[in-house]
Amino acid sequence: MDPRVVELQKEAAGRDDVIGLAGGLPADELLPRDALAKALADVTASRDDALQYGWPEGTEQLRGWIASRLAARGAHVDPERIIVTAGAQQALTISARVLRGTIAVGDATYAAAIDAFTRAGAKVARDHGGARYVIHGVANPQGVELVDRAALLASTGPLIVDEAYAELRFDGHTPRPLIADAPDRVWHIGTISKTIAPGLRIGWLIPPAKHHAAALDQKAAADLQTSSLTQAALARLVTQLDVDALIARARAAYREKAAALGEALHRAAPQLRFREPEGGFSIWIETGREGDDLALLRRCLDAGVMVDPGSAFRPEPVPTIAIRASYSNATPDQLAEAARRLARVLG
Amino acid sequence: MDPRVVELQKEAAGRDDVIGLAGGLPADELLPRDALAKALADVTASRDDALQYGWPEGTEQLRGWIASRLAARGAHVDPERIIVTAGAQQALTISARVLRGTIAVGDATYAAAIDAFTRAGAKVARDHGGARYVIHGVANPQGVELVDRAALLASTGPLIVDEAYAELRFDGHTPRPLIADAPDRVWHIGTISKTIAPGLRIGWLIPPAKHHAAALDQKAAADLQTSSLTQAALARLVTQLDVDALIARARAAYREKAAALGEALHRAAPQLRFREPEGGFSIWIETGREGDDLALLRRCLDAGVMVDPGSAFRPEPVPTIAIRASYSNATPDQLAEAARRLARVLG
Repeated sequence: MDPRVVELQKEAAGRDDVIGLAGGLPADELLPRDALAKALADVTASRDDALQYGWPEGTEQLRGWIASRLAARGAHVDPERIIVTAGAQQALTISARVLRGTIAVGDATYAAAIDAFTRAGAKVARDHGGARYVIHGVANPQGVELVDRAALLASTGPLIVDEAYAELRFDGHTPRPLIADAPDRVWHIGTISKTIAPGLRIGWLIPPAKHHAAALDQKAAADLQTSSLTQAALARLVTQLDVDALIARARAAYREKAAALGEALHRAAPQLRFREPEGGFSIWIETGREGDDLALLRRCLDAGVMVDPGSAFRPEPVPTIAIRASYSNATPDQLAEAARRLARVLG
Repeated sequence: MDPRVVELQKEAAGRDDVIGLAGGLPADELLPRDALAKALADVTASRDDALQYGWPEGTEQLRGWIASRLAARGAHVDPERIIVTAGAQQALTISARVLRGTIAVGDATYAAAIDAFTRAGAKVARDHGGARYVIHGVANPQGVELVDRAALLASTGPLIVDEAYAELRFDGHTPRPLIADAPDRVWHIGTISKTIAPGLRIGWLIPPAKHHAAALDQKAAADLQTSSLTQAALARLVTQLDVDALIARARAAYREKAAALGEALHRAAPQLRFREPEGGFSIWIETGREGDDLALLRRCLDAGVMVDPGSAFRPEPVPTIAIRASYSNATPDQLAEAARRLARVLG
């Protein structure tokens, strides 16, 4: 990430008068705080292994839960193949460390995936014949499904499939996991960061069987294992909480927030073009203007609203400016006001 | 790690009749379970940021605590320079990702450091003119101080200084941090895994100022950030718990365990040569025998005792077999019996 952007982000986070639409945070009010507190208390009191070292691949309980969630969606995966990671981010890094080469990511993609791939020694390109990275169900930053399932299944290279937002489609149609149909070349990546809590740092990677040993080796070398405590708490939480009901509530809440921001933008800045999100946390706005998006970000901040700069999501520079505005952790009132402030800058 | 060793480790962990002296786990009975449960309950109930995303460098509270602990030992470090990592292991990986090249580690060193360095794209060697990795205070696996402070300070290359066991010297003489005297080339690494709890996965890295941005970039790309929850819990815990008293109790307990294993080995296998540990978790036994240490490990397991194979700690192969026996998470009775079983294999 550009350190000048980080500086603006920190300024924004420290100012009460700035409405934050940057970063893509889940809504504070949707985090299952009480259930997590109970699960943490239970495992800390009862389980030595919650505070001790564990195996690099993660706990059997948690891998079993992950496998059962996938099985319910049509993908039958041996829990032995699952590697619990420090969020989806680490799963991206491990995939790239093993695959290397060039990874095709499209016109715009999750900014931190570009960082993960390049820092891990791979290259990224808009298009390329080798490995491909897709965000299945709802693309980030675009907010809509961009996966052409038939085309992907007809392709031949490795597929890094990120399901970060797959369960947060507003229509509730969580897609069938691609790993169900291309198990030999899909690197399946999931996370609880968008649906349960990012602060636990739990995600998972299911590499193709032939790459499992190399991926696990990278995981162990990177940090030995994912936190025993957060793994144990999550495994306990999911026995005490109706996860599907939690996700259904989250879907409904984010759908409302998306509508609130979309409508406010249409009112305040009718000339702005963007696609209505099908799910997830953000609206992606291609402004059509040329220029320096850092200067635009500064003007947004001066107007009291913070967004993410489109350039961070680009594998290759483009002349026009885009922004990503995340409605996920703001109230309807904040979203209406944020739209007016954005309109002053972009209008 | 050799997958055949991992297989034996898992067999050992699953068998009630095997006494485990492998892995270097802190004693279950020394983990501050109740205090951690309280800290977790406090932060989960009161702090949104404990469940949310945070900054890559870690929380201000925790970095402030780390800086204050170092200041008490004579090293005055700006908390802005500290990066909270997923255990010391991630700090090793990040150091190697930034430094690359060859890292000198001595005859035998922490096995997972060899993995971290090599998987991160660096090379390791017994001796070399470039960067050097040292475990300060108590070397692992040797159990004694191997740092020649004057020689290190007279050298010129980068120094990766791992303080994993620095506060666990039995004589209580925690050394002055090397970063106090060579701030421009020391990569200082610390952890709570040996003194508070490994399951939280919290360590830290203080790279030389000129490498801070590159190291932070690697941290963010690797996993975005260390768990907000475990950081918040630790920052709370250290305001509610006398950490120095906890460490003093741990020191006394490990000194007793070390003596128990050492005396039992002298009785059961008087011909075995080893140095009495000055601190830490393990006794390093160079058997003088030649051969395959995997076969020896198998024989240990059949005799009902598990240790770590010396070859895992070697940057370059040596013909003779060594083993690392960790007394840290066993009772005096178990240690006495383990010594008798080891004597049957090694005697």
